[in-house]
Amino acid sequence: MGSSREEARGTAAPSGLVSVVRLPHCWFILCTSSELGRKPLARMLQGVPLVLFRAADGKPGALADRCPHRNVPLSLGRVVGGQLQCGYHGWRFDTAGQCRAVPGFTGEPEAKSRCAVWYATREQEGFVWVYSTPGVEPTHEPYRFPLLNAPGYSTVRRVLRAKGSLHALLENTLDVPHTSFLHGGLFRTEKKRGEIDVVVRRGADRVEAEYIGEPRPEGLVGRLLAPGGGVLRHFDRFLMPSIAQVEYQLGADSHMMVTSAMTPVEDWDTLVYAVVTFRLPLPHWLIKPFITPVALHIFQQDARILERQTETIRRFGSESFASTEVDVLGPSILRLMRQAERDKTSAAPAEVHETRLKMQV
Amino acid sequence: MGSSREEARGTAAPSGLVSVVRLPHCWFILCTSSELGRKPLARMLQGVPLVLFRAADGKPGALADRCPHRNVPLSLGRVVGGQLQCGYHGWRFDTAGQCRAVPGFTGEPEAKSRCAVWYATREQEGFVWVYSTPGVEPTHEPYRFPLLNAPGYSTVRRVLRAKGSLHALLENTLDVPHTSFLHGGLFRTEKKRGEIDVVVRRGADRVEAEYIGEPRPEGLVGRLLAPGGGVLRHFDRFLMPSIAQVEYQLGADSHMMVTSAMTPVEDWDTLVYAVVTFRLPLPHWLIKPFITPVALHIFQQDARILERQTETIRRFGSESFASTEVDVLGPSILRLMRQAERDKTSAAPAEVHETRLKMQV
Amino acid sequence: MGSSREEARGTAAPSGLVSVVRLPHCWFILCTSSELGRKPLARMLQGVPLVLFRAADGKPGALADRCPHRNVPLSLGRVVGGQLQCGYHGWRFDTAGQCRAVPGFTGEPEAKSRCAVWYATREQEGFVWVYSTPGVEPTHEPYRFPLLNAPGYSTVRRVLRAKGSLHALLENTLDVPHTSFLHGGLFRTEKKRGEIDVVVRRGADRVEAEYIGEPRPEGLVGRLLAPGGGVLRHFDRFLMPSIAQVEYQLGADSHMMVTSAMTPVEDWDTLVYAVVTFRLPLPHWLIKPFITPVALHIFQQDARILERQTETIRRFGSESFASTEVDVLGPSILRLMRQAERDKTSAAPAEVHETRLKMQV
Repeated sequence: MGSSREEARGTAAPSGLVSVVRLPHCWFILCTSSELGRKPLARMLQGVPLVLFRAADGKPGALADRCPHRNVPLSLGRVVGGQLQCGYHGWRFDTAGQCRAVPGFTGEPEAKSRCAVWYATREQEGFVWVYSTPGVEPTHEPYRFPLLNAPGYSTVRRVLRAKGSLHALLENTLDVPHTSFLHGGLFRTEKKRGEIDVVVRRGADRVEAEYIGEPRPEGLVGRLLAPGGGVLRHFDRFLMPSIAQVEYQLGADSHMMVTSAMTPVEDWDTLVYAVVTFRLPLPHWLIKPFITPVALHIFQQDARILERQTETIRRFGSESFASTEVDVLGPSILRLMRQAERDKTSAAPAEVHETRLKMQV
Repeated sequence: MGSSREEARGTAAPSGLVSVVRLPHCWFILCTSSELGRKPLARMLQGVPLVLFRAADGKPGALADRCPHRNVPLSLGRVVGGQLQCGYHGWRFDTAGQCRAVPGFTGEPEAKSRCAVWYATREQEGFVWVYSTPGVEPTHEPYRFPLLNAPGYSTVRRVLRAKGSLHALLENTLDVPHTSFLHGGLFRTEKKRGEIDVVVRRGADRVEAEYIGEPRPEGLVGRLLAPGGGVLRHFDRFLMPSIAQVEYQLGADSHMMVTSAMTPVEDWDTLVYAVVTFRLPLPHWLIKPFITPVALHIFQQDARILERQTETIRRFGSESFASTEVDVLGPSILRLMRQAERDKTSAAPAEVHETRLKMQV
Repeated sequence: MGSSREEARGTAAPSGLVSVVRLPHCWFILCTSSELGRKPLARMLQGVPLVLFRAADGKPGALADRCPHRNVPLSLGRVVGGQLQCGYHGWRFDTAGQCRAVPGFTGEPEAKSRCAVWYATREQEGFVWVYSTPGVEPTHEPYRFPLLNAPGYSTVRRVLRAKGSLHALLENTLDVPHTSFLHGGLFRTEKKRGEIDVVVRRGADRVEAEYIGEPRPEGLVGRLLAPGGGVLRHFDRFLMPSIAQVEYQLGADSHMMVTSAMTPVEDWDTLVYAVVTFRLPLPHWLIKPFITPVALHIFQQDARILERQTETIRRFGSESFASTEVDVLGPSILRLMRQAERDKTSAAPAEVHETRLKMQV
């Protein structure tokens, strides 16, 4: 009974705003494996309240967070024998949404009208993924993080959150020009600009920018990171529907990959599951303590701006977007997202188009 | 000038929600007699702000709580000689809404355009009732509580409030299955279930469920309540538009009636004027102190669930209702309410239809 | 790109409310000269967020408070060489809204699509005025306060704010009947009423009421204010679009002018830039300390009522206005405002119509 409505909410684009997209048929991380224990866990995906719980065999289940009986949130109840029991009348549901008990009722509990709305789930690499369209079994699997178990690599994971749209966060994460300005001093500065080449490769489900000729870190830092010398390679990548990936390679010795799998909680609230994998010529126990505070500092500067951006869009009731070619990835990301919103499934892989531009860094 | 608008607000059903009903031509309790003293009293009925005050002869009056002159709430003013005086320019109104004074104006104050919107009122049995349609003299009188002055009976009154719709509260009050679950242990338990018969009687303005074969309280309690033995009779009744009544009879000695007259303050905010009348073989001074704390404990559990139910409907922007036959009264109550909302007056009394079902308790 | 939308918001009247008006092509005070220093200043005009800053030559500029690039409020940035620099990517704008720098971009920054929405400004008499229609050069100049530098006159300035519509504040400021009621005792009382004549003069951009025969202050006060005797003259004036002026003249010696230039911040939030100019036979250093506390006391009583008026309109979702002839100016003010909202420019000066009425004071 409730299913068509939830689906509608999950796919309808809000009125008049260009950059807010609701993506059907996509996998998103809803929690980490360790967050989902014996109690039901209330989460939100693209504005739809969900409840996660574990079946008797430990597999995660996800239902719309309201009992089909009387609209009480199922997350208020508890898990009994791998079934989720509503706290009001005690109706029970399995991970397929099937009603399995109706206390007091002498008939059979299983009836189509009494089903809860269910969502496909996967648990892998320490994350619980949920499929954004309810009631269907997906034909593709969630994203896998690169280099997680590669020899010589270390991993740092963090969960972040900002009051911005999925698109705003994706663009921000993969945007170069704001770094020297907003994060000025930290890893790029406004002074001493030089011109570099940017190669942009656009595919059916991704877009990538390669920065060529970017200066290497100077002095001691450069020598520490690349004792054998070599050039700096830098890629910014967007992978449908919500992965932002920044890759740095410095000579043969230094390699760092920051992969951010984002989850649109609501239109203006986005969770970021960040996985940093790296191989550096310095002892990793020495590096690791620095990664989180530096990343958090940068992220907090961005989060503050993104929140003000959201606030401004709300106050004006409209959006303004004027781009130049150094807004390298943002417009392409939005095009891919809006296409996915319309088609509801990602298109067949097409050939990659390559373009070039100049940027001052 | 404002009258047609208030009436519209009082009768229009909100968009798309099945269970929210606005009832015209109905009596609701707005306050107790003792709450209405010398000062004007601001209240809300079905989303419409009202102000109550007493005329010179002590009779209660009710007006829409805004001055027709400049929209200031009349409840901000004071009562002068049985007229309600606005606090801004001092315009005065009688209980019929007639404007009786316009300070500074040299003409006659009485003019149709200067009338306040008025509502019929009645004061009886310690309650002030207000009619939900403004500007008309009702053709029927408010409900009278049973057994208030019956010999051998005692009465306890309480005012309660919950963030749920009128329908949700009515159904909750008359619902049996949730008691053994939500209030588990208190008066029914999940274990030791037996099957009983339920007789449902549906009339033009009421619906009643009679529970037959319900087990009597065991041991000492049963012997205390019914020293002469006898069977337990239990009725749950809904009386249009907003009365929920639970009646227990145990042998010849014990009789208890819990009558809840509910007032829809706003769509998701309901006041309950509860009147408990009882005759028990134990001393009433011994019983009375227990009634309020036990009833409050139960009510608080219900109120918490009802608030979460409301919250969930709001978050989803829609409702989900899937019932079984052990949702004995809820669907019938809603049918009667929606019919009253459409017809605007209650139909002539029709014959009573009786049906039967089984329930595990 | 954003310009048409801002303009739309600045001129569209909200749904169904009679008294809420959005006035295009009008000058409003946005801040005092001293409030606008080296930092950008965020303000709101008729619901549109604006940012004010000073160009290199000190002249004030006003832009819509969002960067056309990515919707971040420009007021979050800083002023660099008389240009406003966005805090996200560092785009810079001059007071004409022209984009003057796009860090990282190798092309020319100036492009029409990259312009910020600009508003004409004037700075005079210690106030910064902004024109309510963006992107146009006004054909008329802001209002000038009377008697600011007249010999023998003193001036007191205050900024006030109330949660009421522009119209509600204008009417309240120029309304006589509420004074003896709401501010009873302070300068008029309900008792001892006498009848006086009121002459009303309605022009194309103004309306004025002259009160004839009003009693002079009694006893010592009257003798102090008008030692040479003489009659009391009292005018209440409204000047389009938002000036309320109260003028008192008592004999040849006392003259006081309270001019309130109002700014509609949002539909229900109004700023009042009050300028009191006066010439009195008492030492001005003796008078001045009393003006502010007495005026504030009166204003706070009014502000409280206006806030409740706003609240009531919101709760009912509609307005009720029933007037008598002693609502001398309110209806005329509304007529002029609504006409200006439709025509978008004030009409050519027309002849003045004079009418008379009686009022009890």
